[in-house]
Formats: sequence, structure tokens, C-alpha cells
Amino acid sequence: MATDSAFKHVYGVVMAGGSGTRFWPLSRRRHPKQLLTLFGRRTLLEQTVARIRPAIPLEHVYIFTGEPILQNIRRLLPGIPSSQILGEPASRNTAPTAAVAAQEIVRRDPEGLMVVLPSDQIINKPALFRRLLATACHVASQPGRSVVLGLKPTRPETGFGYIRLGRRLGRVAGHEVFHVVRFTEKPALAEARRYVASGRYLWNGGIFIWKAATLFENLQRFQPEMADLARRIAEAGGICSRAFRRLYPKFQKISIDFALMEKISDIYAVPADIGWNDVGSWAVVYELSHQDSERNVRSGPGLSLDSQRNMVVSPKKFVVTVGVHDLVVVETDDALLVCARERSQDVGKAVQEIEVLGRDDLL
Amino acid sequence: MATDSAFKHVYGVVMAGGSGTRFWPLSRRRHPKQLLTLFGRRTLLEQTVARIRPAIPLEHVYIFTGEPILQNIRRLLPGIPSSQILGEPASRNTAPTAAVAAQEIVRRDPEGLMVVLPSDQIINKPALFRRLLATACHVASQPGRSVVLGLKPTRPETGFGYIRLGRRLGRVAGHEVFHVVRFTEKPALAEARRYVASGRYLWNGGIFIWKAATLFENLQRFQPEMADLARRIAEAGGICSRAFRRLYPKFQKISIDFALMEKISDIYAVPADIGWNDVGSWAVVYELSHQDSERNVRSGPGLSLDSQRNMVVSPKKFVVTVGVHDLVVVETDDALLVCARERSQDVGKAVQEIEVLGRDDLL
Repeated sequence: MATDSAFKHVYGVVMAGGSGTRFWPLSRRRHPKQLLTLFGRRTLLEQTVARIRPAIPLEHVYIFTGEPILQNIRRLLPGIPSSQILGEPASRNTAPTAAVAAQEIVRRDPEGLMVVLPSDQIINKPALFRRLLATACHVASQPGRSVVLGLKPTRPETGFGYIRLGRRLGRVAGHEVFHVVRFTEKPALAEARRYVASGRYLWNGGIFIWKAATLFENLQRFQPEMADLARRIAEAGGICSRAFRRLYPKFQKISIDFALMEKISDIYAVPADIGWNDVGSWAVVYELSHQDSERNVRSGPGLSLDSQRNMVVSPKKFVVTVGVHDLVVVETDDALLVCARERSQDVGKAVQEIEVLGRDDLL
Repeated sequence: MATDSAFKHVYGVVMAGGSGTRFWPLSRRRHPKQLLTLFGRRTLLEQTVARIRPAIPLEHVYIFTGEPILQNIRRLLPGIPSSQILGEPASRNTAPTAAVAAQEIVRRDPEGLMVVLPSDQIINKPALFRRLLATACHVASQPGRSVVLGLKPTRPETGFGYIRLGRRLGRVAGHEVFHVVRFTEKPALAEARRYVASGRYLWNGGIFIWKAATLFENLQRFQPEMADLARRIAEAGGICSRAFRRLYPKFQKISIDFALMEKISDIYAVPADIGWNDVGSWAVVYELSHQDSERNVRSGPGLSLDSQRNMVVSPKKFVVTVGVHDLVVVETDDALLVCARERSQDVGKAVQEIEVLGRDDLL
């Protein structure tokens, strides 16, 4: 099977360090978004791992997360060697994680390719996703190349980075591949509209594929301090050593996008129409959930009177709505959120205010 | 002091049988509106009793309520003889209560006057209220007369009955008194507007004053079955007897307004501008509560982000509102209400639906 050979040297690096304040009060520091069961019975992290598992064996999967939820994740994913589920001693965004992962994978397999994956997205076409990953790995197997899965934009979203496509490379393993002209930061609305209308831009969903050695060479050139620190950790024993715990906090806090993708060349994009969603707010959960005849979404007991287009999440408490619309209501044992659905991207701001109030028990 | 003599033969009859579903989820069958502390530290019932206490001694006060909350009320009001705090074995509205109370008072004091008072209203001018009661008692001390305190209407309310004033009787004990042409049922809006504009109508707030003997004579004429049943209860031992428990459920369920006030003549009204409010819904509680600079009312911990004119009642849980306005949010241990403020009169409908669902634990 083509897939088998395509994934022979491939390692999955799942970025599970996010704090997910936008899903407060369900998401907390010790229970962030990737551990929520927003859809179905499995957490977003479990779904992420299940999605790559048919292609990448669990022994080839690394999960990087925050220390508070490390043991939770080890319990949740017993098939992954616990030495490959790592708690970062400090939150340093994705570039340092990729740097230490690259060192680890090169040591293990000099030909190793790494697939970097966020842990908190949904992809409705997992089989197609894996076929596109095979294409990406094929392209990335040539030294010096970086590859990104580019998501087809469906709206002028200002919360994502965009990928400007260049000339077509051709079909690789059955799928189109393009050169990338540049990565752009989150655009203003007018710009985002131009991007989407042009047909030459894709969303950057943070799914990257490189040879680990190529990634590290790029780091040495564009982020030499970061590369040096990653090398020192590797020489001192790698990601399971005390050196990892001691040195990791010295990394600069920076994303892969800023640290590398906006700087390097020889990047390729594989357009991926895979039913992708970053599930960025309660409003997205509402859109993706089953709505009743009044377009309400309800998780938990209760009743609605003359109420439309609300989402009510309350596992135990009986929730009655009367004459309200377009609200998000989320109830937990210690907190309650009542939010205009169109304002749900601002829940994170409320969480910041809770932090200012010193109510750490609610974070 | 004029007041002393005015109240010599006066007995208070407090109607505390209401179920107050409109304040769900705070009000329940075992914790109805009159037992809520919506304002200040005291329940509406305690405030009702405190209001008449300077005029009517507690030994002259009767409270009629439902059996589920009888013991609660006895604990709440230890100054009233427990033999005068009575649990009606069935809910029969106000007319049967007035009938048995009249029999009881006539037996105790043939000259006795009775003041019928709802238990769940607020009156901001209690001293003026008592002076007007003295006037009413003075008028009612002549046999055959019925007196009502009429509240000055401040809006074309369709939820109240109205009192059509006739010619002026004159000033009695310092206050104006009018003949009453008729009692009207709850009017339609256009009618209510005409009533208010005319200046000839007052609200009927359910505060009535009669000689107990007069009330009973009216009952004998217009509600002979009810009078007969009340007489049988009195002859069999009165309100503390087994006969009361056995016979009371046989009464027709009917209000004083329908049973008597719309039928009898020789009625007088004392206009009372006493800061009266029946506190009929959460919206009224909102209006009467202290509002912050964003016109939010909050009871309990939490924070508001871009939210205006909401009322949040949640004694323990931390409630965050984001981008919402004109909502009523009320949280208890087992239930949560999220209601458009202008729809808060419909909370009772939601309670009916809860009953249909068979969730008696929530009622």
C-alpha cells in the first residue's frame, strides 16, 4: 500500500500545550480545550491521535503539553509510550517544541520526517487528510523542503494566518502541490476578503511537514539561539532528561509561523479540502452541533420557551430559557457563562479579567 | 393617639397562600414568593407583618397559608400566636379564607374589623399606609360598609383589577374617601389606558377593610353556600378544629374580588399613594433594585463584559456575562433561568411546562 511506504520514516508531533481560555468555564488550566469532549465521546486530542493512527504508528507519535495535564494525557492515550508524552516546564509556543522534537527525531531516525499537528482541531475527512499527508511527506522527503497543509478558506477570517500560493509544482501521489510565495500574519478584514476572492490563498492551520534534519537546518540559519539550545538539550540527554526541564524555559516564546515560516524559502503547500475547523469559539461549536427545530443546541436537561438559536451546555442543572435568542449559556459546578453568541471570541477577555480579580480557582 | 382608638377592634388577615411561580427558580412550592428576600434581609411576608405591627398588635394578626410552608412561617413569625397561623388544607383563593376569618373574628369580637392584606407586596410609605388604614377602619366601622385601599395607577397595567370611583364622601380622619361605582376585572390595554387617563380609577391591590359581621352578611347574601360552610366550620370548633381541615376543601375556589367586590354595594375607596408595588415579576425586582453604572443588577459574584441592563441572581456561582443585555439570569442549586427581562411575566408558563414534564423536584 502506498501509504505504508509513504509513512515509513514519519513521526507525529502533536502540539497539545494550548490553554483554551475561549471555552471557559468548561476549559480550565487543568482541563484545556484539547481535553474537552465538544463533539462525540472523545476529546479533541484523542480525535487528533485517532486521525493519524492509521498512518503513523503510536510509537512514532510525540505529544508535547503543559505539565498540569501531563498525567491526564498519559492516562487518556495509553498506546503512546509515556516517554513520548512530554510536559513542557514552561509555555514557549510551538517553535521551541518543534526544535526539540526535531533533535529527538533526527537522533532516532536520521531520515525522519515530522508532521506537526495542533491537538484541538476537527477534520471531517480523515481518510483524505491522511492521503494528503502522504503527498506532503513525499514532497518533504527531499532535503531542504518545508511543506504545509493549506486549508481552503470559506470566509474572510481575520483570526488565521494565510498562505500565498505560487506556481504549481504538479501532482504528487495523486494530489496537487504548489510552491508557497509567503506566509502572512492575520490580516485585516479588507485584506482577508481580497485573499479569499483571489483564490490564491489558503489558511494556515498549523499542520507542517519536514524532514527533521531540514527543520533543524532552517532553525540553525534563522533561529540560531533556539537551535543551539535544542542541540544542548539533545546532547545532555534529550527530552526525557533533567536538561530538558532545566533548559527549556530559556527558549524564546515564539510560534513556528513567526520563527520560521515567514522567513524560510522552499516551502510547498498541499491544498486540503478536508472539512477542517479549528473550533475557535463557542459559536463554532454551536455551528457544528445538532440544532433542533428552533435552532437551539442543548447539552443537558431543561426547556426552551420562545427561544431560538441558543446553545445551552449544562450537564446536570435544569436550564429554562424564556424569550432569548443567540446566546451561549455554559454552566459548571463553580461558574456560569452567559454570552452573546457573536461575542463568544471575547470569552478569553473575560478570563483575563477573572485573572485580574485573583480568582485563580476559576482558571 | 387617634391611631390607637382607630385600631382598637381591628384584626389583620394576611393572605399568604400564593405559590409565586413567576419567581422560579428562586420561588418553589415550599419557598413561594412571600418567603423570598427579594429586597433587604426580610421576607416579603415579614415586611407585611412589620408594616401593620405598629397599628395592629400581633395577637390580632391571622396568617392563612399553604400547609407545606406552615411551619416555616411559624418559625419566621414567633410573635404571632401559632393558633393564628393557619395552613389551609387546600388552595381555595381568598374568598373562603376571608369567610372563615370573618367567622373567627366575629366570635372573638362582635365589633371586630378585619383588614385583608396580601403577603407579597411592598409599600414604601408604611406610616402613611397605616394612617390611611385608620381612615379606612373609621369608614368601615359603620355596619354594611366595605372599604378598599385604592392604589394610584402609574401605568396602564392590564394585570390588575381597577376600582371606578364615584362621588366623594369627604375627608375622614384627614384623608379623602370616595364611593366606589364598581370593581372591574383586568382590562384590555386600550381600556386600561382610558382608565388611567380618566383619573377616576384606582388599582385594586387586594387590601380590603370591613367589619367581620358586615363581610359575613355580604357573603350570606351573595355567596350563601360559602357562608354556610364557614358557619359550619365555626360551629364545629373554628379554624383550629378538625372540621376546618375536613370542610375547607369543599369551598369553591374564588377570589374576594369575584365572589364579593364585583357584586356588593356600599363600597368606599381610600386613595393611597403609598409607594405600592405588587412585585409581580423579575422585571419589577430589577426596576426596584440598585443598578450599577451599566444598569446591571447583580446578587452574587461575577463580572460583566459589555453587558447592560441585566439582572443576575446567583448567590454562590461566579457568573460572567459577555455582550448581553436586558436579561434575567437566576441560578439555584438545581436550576437556572435565562429570560428576556421583558418576558419575565411568562416564567410561570415555563413552570407549567416543568409540571407537564413531571419534574416535581423542580417545583
